[in-house]
Amino acid sequence: MRATLLHGPGDVRFEEMPDPVIRDPRNAIVRVVASCVCGSDLWRYRGITGTATEPQLIGHEFVGIVEEVGSDVSRVKVGDFVIAPFYDCDMTCENCRNGFSTSCLEIGWWGSKDHAGHPTDGGQGEYVRIPHADGSLTVVPGGMPDEALIPSLLTLSDVFLTGHHAAVSAGVGTGSTVVVVGDGAVGLSGVLAASRLGAERIVAMSRHEPRQNLARQFGATDVIAARGDEGVAAVKELFGGIGPDAVLECVGTKESMDQALRSARPGGQVGFVGVPNGGPELPVRTMFSTNVGVRGGVAPVRNYIDELLPEVLSGAIEPGRVFDLTVPMAEVAEAYAAMDERRAIKSLLRP
Amino acid sequence: MRATLLHGPGDVRFEEMPDPVIRDPRNAIVRVVASCVCGSDLWRYRGITGTATEPQLIGHEFVGIVEEVGSDVSRVKVGDFVIAPFYDCDMTCENCRNGFSTSCLEIGWWGSKDHAGHPTDGGQGEYVRIPHADGSLTVVPGGMPDEALIPSLLTLSDVFLTGHHAAVSAGVGTGSTVVVVGDGAVGLSGVLAASRLGAERIVAMSRHEPRQNLARQFGATDVIAARGDEGVAAVKELFGGIGPDAVLECVGTKESMDQALRSARPGGQVGFVGVPNGGPELPVRTMFSTNVGVRGGVAPVRNYIDELLPEVLSGAIEPGRVFDLTVPMAEVAEAYAAMDERRAIKSLLRP
Repeated sequence: MRATLLHGPGDVRFEEMPDPVIRDPRNAIVRVVASCVCGSDLWRYRGITGTATEPQLIGHEFVGIVEEVGSDVSRVKVGDFVIAPFYDCDMTCENCRNGFSTSCLEIGWWGSKDHAGHPTDGGQGEYVRIPHADGSLTVVPGGMPDEALIPSLLTLSDVFLTGHHAAVSAGVGTGSTVVVVGDGAVGLSGVLAASRLGAERIVAMSRHEPRQNLARQFGATDVIAARGDEGVAAVKELFGGIGPDAVLECVGTKESMDQALRSARPGGQVGFVGVPNGGPELPVRTMFSTNVGVRGGVAPVRNYIDELLPEVLSGAIEPGRVFDLTVPMAEVAEAYAAMDERRAIKSLLRP
Repeated sequence: MRATLLHGPGDVRFEEMPDPVIRDPRNAIVRVVASCVCGSDLWRYRGITGTATEPQLIGHEFVGIVEEVGSDVSRVKVGDFVIAPFYDCDMTCENCRNGFSTSCLEIGWWGSKDHAGHPTDGGQGEYVRIPHADGSLTVVPGGMPDEALIPSLLTLSDVFLTGHHAAVSAGVGTGSTVVVVGDGAVGLSGVLAASRLGAERIVAMSRHEPRQNLARQFGATDVIAARGDEGVAAVKELFGGIGPDAVLECVGTKESMDQALRSARPGGQVGFVGVPNGGPELPVRTMFSTNVGVRGGVAPVRNYIDELLPEVLSGAIEPGRVFDLTVPMAEVAEAYAAMDERRAIKSLLRP
């Protein structure tokens, strides 16, 4: 098969790799039907995090068709169309049952290692071995779906449910006032998630017109282009000088977290899903005096998929609209370059 | 009148001060019936925070009898027995209405300044002017209560409701598993609050036998004497290697917050009320990878008093048992020394 390898900063290639094989009776092999590039992949692509000495597999979001299953797999069958979360999990351990499958006691990461230390396949390739097929995979009823649904189904692998996790972590509910920091695909997904959860007013912080437009289509009631001190002041003004109930931090820099913390009203909550880039620490004294809480992290998307899948299948929500570029996997370099240069919000890849 | 002044590290004196007078039609004058020493007063007493060049008023927890009211005061009458929160607030602004009266737009602090910049009286004195009498004061039905109820009523001024805020901020509810870091009066109050909120298992971290005993009387199911790495390991072991749902951080040091964050299970929540001493910052990358949330701060006790008062009056809860020393205000130096030397958990003062 072929899969995407990161050779160095700015250098991704779709290359020949060994075909995956069943290693354990709980495994399945999935033929990838669609994959995509994540904002977090860009950190590595830009050489900001994870400098490697040899080519690395990359990609962790995919949907596909089950080609083969091990003898202990019972929930998933050959021919099923499945959604994989951006990690592998068993869904039977205490952390999975508590709703935090990203802390599964048998966690594995695509393009890296599974729980047993065996190498895993990357998500931007033609085939992927799934270590815990019954735990990780969600079967989409009815087999291969309509082509038009594939982008939205693919967002359940990571991006939409990461935005959903930001909203859940920020405590968004009926009548909430919400500010979303970050207008990437995750931030836009956060807007859609907040709208779906019943938020009354949703402010997208964005200075890019196509993203502003999509934010409005996803339910944003207001758009603020200002950033930093000016952005905080504009937000406070919009909410009676106090600030909103909830802020979704969907970037991961020190500046974005600072803006989020300063924007929330006293007693409000920041839900954060931006991968902290370099590890800014949180100012606990400010949190103490304002009672602004901070909660979030790596999104346990597997725990959310079953709840959201019916709304995607019915067309009630269309989170797949974050994709504005589709390219063949063989042209993966263009998928990355377009996102890196902000020509695309999010790139979808087809084998 | 006389009031307590902090002259310097280890030096508190009960001295003559001018009697307070009504300055604004919203004011009332309260004659203090009981006051007490707070763990946070000890930081100043020890000279760790707030080094002063001249004597400072100290004390912020008190109950008493209304002696005089301004012409705009309507909810509170002369002769009422009242509970004052540890700050002054209007209870009409948006922050008060949102449940966070500690962020009142007209906040004032005892022994410091009111919202208008006028000096306020300290809480460890004979009389206190209340800037927003209708906002701040809670009237206890029936006038002067039984002597036996006074300690518990006094805890509604700060300590018990600060423990309650830790439990609420940590999301404690029916069936929760809880660890309380800190065996001071706030930590012990947190144990009682968690028990009242329906926690199924409550671990008090304590190595002092009298505090361990009171923790058990307040509802702790387990006591762990170990601290640091050993303490975290003991907690994890008690909860299936995973950790508890909620951790109440009731100390305010870097070590205690670190222990709290490391003790919670993935997806758990730290509720913190220990005044951050020197401002340890929170490790956002650890929070990201574990999904452990952090929420809390200066407790909006005024928003909680009405809910808890009936349970104190009925004797259903006895939070006043945290007081194990009562001295006349004239002997305030002993009240501080006993707490500083850990001879007392919490000292009650009577005029």
